[in-house]
Amino acid sequence: MREAEFREFHTPASGIFFRAKRRLLSERTPFQKMEIYDTASHGRVLLLDGLVQTTERDEFFYHEMLVHPAMMAHPRPRSVLIIGGGDGGTLREALRYPVRSAVLVEIDARVIAACRKYFPGLALSFKDKRAETVVADGNRYIRETDCRFDVILVDSSDPIGPSAVLHQRAFYSALKRCLRPGGVIGAQAGAPLFHLEHLRRKRVFLKDLFSYSHYYLGPVPTYPGGLWCYAFLSDQVSPLRPLRKRVPGKLKYYNTDIHRAAFALPEFLKDRRR
Amino acid sequence: MREAEFREFHTPASGIFFRAKRRLLSERTPFQKMEIYDTASHGRVLLLDGLVQTTERDEFFYHEMLVHPAMMAHPRPRSVLIIGGGDGGTLREALRYPVRSAVLVEIDARVIAACRKYFPGLALSFKDKRAETVVADGNRYIRETDCRFDVILVDSSDPIGPSAVLHQRAFYSALKRCLRPGGVIGAQAGAPLFHLEHLRRKRVFLKDLFSYSHYYLGPVPTYPGGLWCYAFLSDQVSPLRPLRKRVPGKLKYYNTDIHRAAFALPEFLKDRRR
Repeated sequence: MREAEFREFHTPASGIFFRAKRRLLSERTPFQKMEIYDTASHGRVLLLDGLVQTTERDEFFYHEMLVHPAMMAHPRPRSVLIIGGGDGGTLREALRYPVRSAVLVEIDARVIAACRKYFPGLALSFKDKRAETVVADGNRYIRETDCRFDVILVDSSDPIGPSAVLHQRAFYSALKRCLRPGGVIGAQAGAPLFHLEHLRRKRVFLKDLFSYSHYYLGPVPTYPGGLWCYAFLSDQVSPLRPLRKRVPGKLKYYNTDIHRAAFALPEFLKDRRR
Repeated sequence: MREAEFREFHTPASGIFFRAKRRLLSERTPFQKMEIYDTASHGRVLLLDGLVQTTERDEFFYHEMLVHPAMMAHPRPRSVLIIGGGDGGTLREALRYPVRSAVLVEIDARVIAACRKYFPGLALSFKDKRAETVVADGNRYIRETDCRFDVILVDSSDPIGPSAVLHQRAFYSALKRCLRPGGVIGAQAGAPLFHLEHLRRKRVFLKDLFSYSHYYLGPVPTYPGGLWCYAFLSDQVSPLRPLRKRVPGKLKYYNTDIHRAAFALPEFLKDRRR
């Protein structure tokens, strides 16, 4: 295929564009439209329903900030559950720790298959013997499983669209049931600049459900607005407690200074109820 | 004019696009090409030589983070010098403090004139009786002036291009001469994701020139990579000293938690000399 341009609208009248060297895949799975492009600027880029999910160039921002705040704050994470995350990046970061098992529940087997082929830097993690992949609806899985986890990572897509259910109170209430005592949840929460009202509503029920409920922020250059929001949720573990002494390996974005700094919220995102 | 699309390349093969409702101005000044568009997504947008300088929607990220770290750390800023900043946004933020005078040195009078007309939310600051506007080359001004300032804010364009001289050692050395005892410099330093090697080289001479020399970061959604770097420079004032008790008015991004957090640097931007 010759050079092609693709774009993602972040508002009805603005967004980002990429010139692709070629399109590697275009497929309609049972759940969504999946495309993978090879670009000079960002390496390989995965789109689901036209939205950039992952680029080889900047995936580390997102995956490090989704995973390490929860994992570094938990004193001894042994069992990890990942909801979504079919590209394998979240799994890769979680497996940096001496966990016994990491269960990844992804609804779309085609995403996993495609990422194993085209994103080896992320999806190599699926080969780790501690990893277990379950192809299932994450929302249903957490209601039915008897397993309990030290850390749960919610690597869903956006609060507006097919993943909407993964951003609602009932889902977080069921997630809480799956935590072991002292457990921690790290969850992607959306774009503070585009989903601000959603984030405000969500904060109300998260604070109701968890003793420690904190939003935190980090950059993701190719996500809308370039700034991304995550949630740290726990009944026993504060995100600002003493952290593990060492980060697990050589990271590109996260360190313990960044960890603490990420919980400082800008004025426009402060909780006005206080 | 009918609806038009304009774009800025952030790499040779990717960038951002805007659909403009209309183009309000297109002019070749003695120094640069200046365009102003009206957009549904970002309000009015100023471009110089094709690069987005300011949008009404997100200018507060940049202007608050350029100005307030220096102004809040200085115990008693009375006199302020701004190099560049012809849109008036930096001046507006500086004038929130009880300063006696703020001198703005902008090389391009046409930028000031256009922003007074099209960006009243920023350029209203030019009407403040404490503001003095000097149309001159900032690099030359600081070599010739006998004035000394408590705070100097460098609101230049990028390190690559016509403003390159404003990012070099000789310029900072001359700036230092213009500081009053206990003075502080706040300077825009570029895109950490795109000017990383430049930032590393610059750090070496900044550390050599100033006792306190710190990079800090903040988001600017419409700038390349969405993440922006600034420098805090002083011989006597640490950026993490006790700050002023109150921020001057109702801000949208900056607060004192954000101030401290902004100085936490990601792994990829850490100083490897230590």
